[in-house]
Amino acid sequence: MTQLSWQQLRRFVYDNLHNDDYKSTVSTCVNYLLIALIIGNVAAVLLESVNEFYQLYKPYFDIFENLSIMIFSGEYLLRLWSIVEQEPQEAAWKQRIRWMKSGGAIIDLLAILPAYLNFIVPIDLRFLRVLRLVRLLKLTRYFVSLQILLRVIQREKGSFQAVIFILVIMIVMTASAIYVVENKAQPEAFSSIPQSMWWAVVTLTTVGYGDVTPVTNLGRILGAFITILGVGIAALPAGILASGLANELNMRNQRLEQEFREVLQAKGLDLLHDQVEIERIRKKVGLPKEQTHEIIMQLVREKLLEDQEQEKKHYRFCPHCGEKLTE
Amino acid sequence: MTQLSWQQLRRFVYDNLHNDDYKSTVSTCVNYLLIALIIGNVAAVLLESVNEFYQLYKPYFDIFENLSIMIFSGEYLLRLWSIVEQEPQEAAWKQRIRWMKSGGAIIDLLAILPAYLNFIVPIDLRFLRVLRLVRLLKLTRYFVSLQILLRVIQREKGSFQAVIFILVIMIVMTASAIYVVENKAQPEAFSSIPQSMWWAVVTLTTVGYGDVTPVTNLGRILGAFITILGVGIAALPAGILASGLANELNMRNQRLEQEFREVLQAKGLDLLHDQVEIERIRKKVGLPKEQTHEIIMQLVREKLLEDQEQEKKHYRFCPHCGEKLTE
Amino acid sequence: MTQLSWQQLRRFVYDNLHNDDYKSTVSTCVNYLLIALIIGNVAAVLLESVNEFYQLYKPYFDIFENLSIMIFSGEYLLRLWSIVEQEPQEAAWKQRIRWMKSGGAIIDLLAILPAYLNFIVPIDLRFLRVLRLVRLLKLTRYFVSLQILLRVIQREKGSFQAVIFILVIMIVMTASAIYVVENKAQPEAFSSIPQSMWWAVVTLTTVGYGDVTPVTNLGRILGAFITILGVGIAALPAGILASGLANELNMRNQRLEQEFREVLQAKGLDLLHDQVEIERIRKKVGLPKEQTHEIIMQLVREKLLEDQEQEKKHYRFCPHCGEKLTE
Amino acid sequence: MTQLSWQQLRRFVYDNLHNDDYKSTVSTCVNYLLIALIIGNVAAVLLESVNEFYQLYKPYFDIFENLSIMIFSGEYLLRLWSIVEQEPQEAAWKQRIRWMKSGGAIIDLLAILPAYLNFIVPIDLRFLRVLRLVRLLKLTRYFVSLQILLRVIQREKGSFQAVIFILVIMIVMTASAIYVVENKAQPEAFSSIPQSMWWAVVTLTTVGYGDVTPVTNLGRILGAFITILGVGIAALPAGILASGLANELNMRNQRLEQEFREVLQAKGLDLLHDQVEIERIRKKVGLPKEQTHEIIMQLVREKLLEDQEQEKKHYRFCPHCGEKLTE
Repeated sequence: MTQLSWQQLRRFVYDNLHNDDYKSTVSTCVNYLLIALIIGNVAAVLLESVNEFYQLYKPYFDIFENLSIMIFSGEYLLRLWSIVEQEPQEAAWKQRIRWMKSGGAIIDLLAILPAYLNFIVPIDLRFLRVLRLVRLLKLTRYFVSLQILLRVIQREKGSFQAVIFILVIMIVMTASAIYVVENKAQPEAFSSIPQSMWWAVVTLTTVGYGDVTPVTNLGRILGAFITILGVGIAALPAGILASGLANELNMRNQRLEQEFREVLQAKGLDLLHDQVEIERIRKKVGLPKEQTHEIIMQLVREKLLEDQEQEKKHYRFCPHCGEKLTE
Repeated sequence: MTQLSWQQLRRFVYDNLHNDDYKSTVSTCVNYLLIALIIGNVAAVLLESVNEFYQLYKPYFDIFENLSIMIFSGEYLLRLWSIVEQEPQEAAWKQRIRWMKSGGAIIDLLAILPAYLNFIVPIDLRFLRVLRLVRLLKLTRYFVSLQILLRVIQREKGSFQAVIFILVIMIVMTASAIYVVENKAQPEAFSSIPQSMWWAVVTLTTVGYGDVTPVTNLGRILGAFITILGVGIAALPAGILASGLANELNMRNQRLEQEFREVLQAKGLDLLHDQVEIERIRKKVGLPKEQTHEIIMQLVREKLLEDQEQEKKHYRFCPHCGEKLTE
Repeated sequence: MTQLSWQQLRRFVYDNLHNDDYKSTVSTCVNYLLIALIIGNVAAVLLESVNEFYQLYKPYFDIFENLSIMIFSGEYLLRLWSIVEQEPQEAAWKQRIRWMKSGGAIIDLLAILPAYLNFIVPIDLRFLRVLRLVRLLKLTRYFVSLQILLRVIQREKGSFQAVIFILVIMIVMTASAIYVVENKAQPEAFSSIPQSMWWAVVTLTTVGYGDVTPVTNLGRILGAFITILGVGIAALPAGILASGLANELNMRNQRLEQEFREVLQAKGLDLLHDQVEIERIRKKVGLPKEQTHEIIMQLVREKLLEDQEQEKKHYRFCPHCGEKLTE
Repeated sequence: MTQLSWQQLRRFVYDNLHNDDYKSTVSTCVNYLLIALIIGNVAAVLLESVNEFYQLYKPYFDIFENLSIMIFSGEYLLRLWSIVEQEPQEAAWKQRIRWMKSGGAIIDLLAILPAYLNFIVPIDLRFLRVLRLVRLLKLTRYFVSLQILLRVIQREKGSFQAVIFILVIMIVMTASAIYVVENKAQPEAFSSIPQSMWWAVVTLTTVGYGDVTPVTNLGRILGAFITILGVGIAALPAGILASGLANELNMRNQRLEQEFREVLQAKGLDLLHDQVEIERIRKKVGLPKEQTHEIIMQLVREKLLEDQEQEKKHYRFCPHCGEKLTE
């Protein structure tokens, strides 16, 4: 094989594994196969934990696990090898190290590492199995919605810190108060503040198992106050996430809309007749159909208004004496 | 009966069953009767499940069920027959097939199908009864608010997918972690990961039955962390739905307002004196009273401003030769 | 007593009981006394239900109850008598009937009616006592925040209807499904669909007492699905209420701000020096301090800009040849 | 030591303890040490409550507590002494009294007071220990996010009052209703209305321990209605807090952005080339990177538009006599 064909191969691998803009039957197949393998792995972990099942099909599980490690290892190496096609000007090792430090690559590594580590240091089998669930995170690469949610969490970091901080303070104080009040009546359940924290968390998050509950009158009054005041705090993260997500999706939509408009205007299409072409652009940009319709209607209206404006600009000269009229 | 009278009858059926714009005493009666029958059916299903009740009134229940099937079957056939009045130009069979594939028609069919199917394949009686609850969905046709909510769910599909996807990942990981930690202390309740998922769901949704709870210290610490972090995710759908619903209702209101304005301006009413006529339009459009008042006040204000503007327009005479300029 | 002094007395009663704009030491005292009496009544109802307490202090409770009824009856009659001062032109009986049909008057009547009814028809004592809690609703008159919340609920009526309608459908369907699945394993807890509804409500609202839980695998899988999907719906009303309340408070603030601005501009105050007068207006309008500061800063800024604009309007005539320059 | 050196020392103490704008290695160390000491104190309280632990390490706990009191007392005195550097013109005692009445100073005092009080009045040991948790509040000084959340709670005070008021009304009414219905079936759990309130709170906040649940059919129907209606109210505070927090963070961001813009324009930097300087300002103001980029892009665009406008300004010559007009 000559140097050139190696490069062609590397380009081929790069396109199918890294390049999001490149779409072919092969790349689609590769993606679906990898997704299926990840889901299969998760299913295997779940089923192996059912003892009767594991005893029955042990060899098959082992074969599937070994196969999975081989494929995931191969995927990692191929990705590492082909990443240099991203910016052909840059030194290969620099790009490879940069990729290895990216979030996706770290997840890919964590997904296969425990299996290899097990050869050197023996890990508790049950724990090892569960570690394989890290492979689930590999799915992030394939789902836009997951990435959006992660970005929202990233952006609202500050709010979350504040809320979790307050929650911790509330849990500590609540647990201490209930410990003082209930310790004598239930020395088992509220034997110490750390022990009472279990009740505090279960109550403030409104889970309320009922395995530990205050029984004294004072304890119940305290519990009632804490619950009413605390419920608001515990439900805050959801509120923050929800409004953040709404914002993010809104902004993303606006960006898509902007892009769509620009493409439309650049091409100078006849908005009312080139339906096929417009539909093609819409799909490429990724806009929902309804929104597209509205944009086009507005563009048409804007066009009409502009034409009218143009016409109205009369009387730039006095039609009687011909002198120029300033506006 | 001549051909014409058949058509008149079909038109009559169409108006009363399909046509939302047609409102007469007959169509109102038909609608209320059908709604009452649906609710009666649901009540019957609920009551039949109470054994003592069913034993006592078995014959009456059977009569009611047979009557219901006859009416619903008749309704379906009449709808199918009369739908061709919608667009008289089009071929009848095309319209009929299109209608059969619509959501409402499918629900109508599902509401009567199990009863007929039972003649051919015997279905478990209890299951058959519960299937009759599909008839409840027939109500969607009569309630705008339900349709709005469904549209919101439809529109926010993307967010819901993301959230449910994350929830599934969290449930799998949570269940696995608690399985590893609690399996030894409670081999019954946490016997496998799928089994532990029950605890994970009950905890992450903050239902917290308390039938299964962690008892080890490590299990409780893990449970506390998971609960605090997870509560936010589980409550997300509600937040998304709420903001989506607010948006949808807002937009609907704006559309109604726009429509109301247009009708008002088209009729050229005297805004301050034709109260009776305005009230009539308001009711037809379906706007709340308060909002209408605000719109009218604004229209009056706009009118005044416009008049002033009109007056201010300079260059009514050419400032150079003094001749009057026609506009 | 002459006719005139009767009218003066009626005016005095009207001012102290009905007129919100009238503020004197007497009216404040009357209000606080009535509020204290209402709270005292509620406290009495709560304490009477504790048996030991009731046995000990029975006579005192009875005296307090009789005194309360007398005062509340007197209040009702005085309100009814004095309402005619509101619009002296109108016929007295018309105004009295209109007032009797208002929400506040109905609550006032319901607060005293059961006690009188008891003379005619003997009511179960325990039930009679609890009925006295209707007096709690008399507080609505004195708290703006309660009125705001009620207005929000009124305005968002449509959304609530939709949500409660969906909730009912979900509860019926959920209860039916779990009944079919769990009935054989737990014939006691899931003996019929209406019985299973208790579990459905407890689960969908995430209360999760744990007194009834599914035990079969199928039941748990169904329960998990229902919970995840249903949690969003059950939490909707809170989201709608919260966003509605935020809107309402926002609008109220804007109205107050507008009013404040108008008063300020009407009086033509020197914004930077008449601090005492501005503070007086602020209190009267009911604006928070912080917001007032911002409004004043903005008004000052607007003033400055206006002055600059005024100055900039140079060259209305050409300074060289004196001809008028159009802008 | 001369007068001057005393002042220098006081200035040094002021800078390190009070002055937020002053940042040096010493002030950073002091802050981190104090934060660590606070967290250490909280950890000590938690661990002391575990009996085995306390018995083992009693002397160490006592030493740590005495050391903490000394340091916190010293901190309080130094703060009190050095505060006069804030406004050197004002009388020292006035500033000291003003500081003592500030929130931060009160928390500082409450954090050390119980320990001293214990010398005079002996307090129950367990209660005394828990009182030390007040020290946790000293952290507020160091965390912006906490201050923001407190400000939101402060601002939304009105809404919270309304909601808590409604909640109390709902709890009283719910408890009374369930008391009337369930008292006969469960005379223990629902022995009086105050006793029944425990169930009401646990249910309305959706905690749902399950230690007390209705068992009669009527009780369950009532419970179901109450839960469905009440869930919305109980979750309100979270919604209010979440939207308030979102608003506050938004406004804070806008203020930072405004500040950043002003600094940029005051310095007259070349927006496209002085990247290093801009980055320095960005860090100082505390803006996120992404947002900064957008601001700069907009400033550049504005600059361009302004230049075009400048050029377009007509009447640079009198259109009648042609003489140049100075602007």
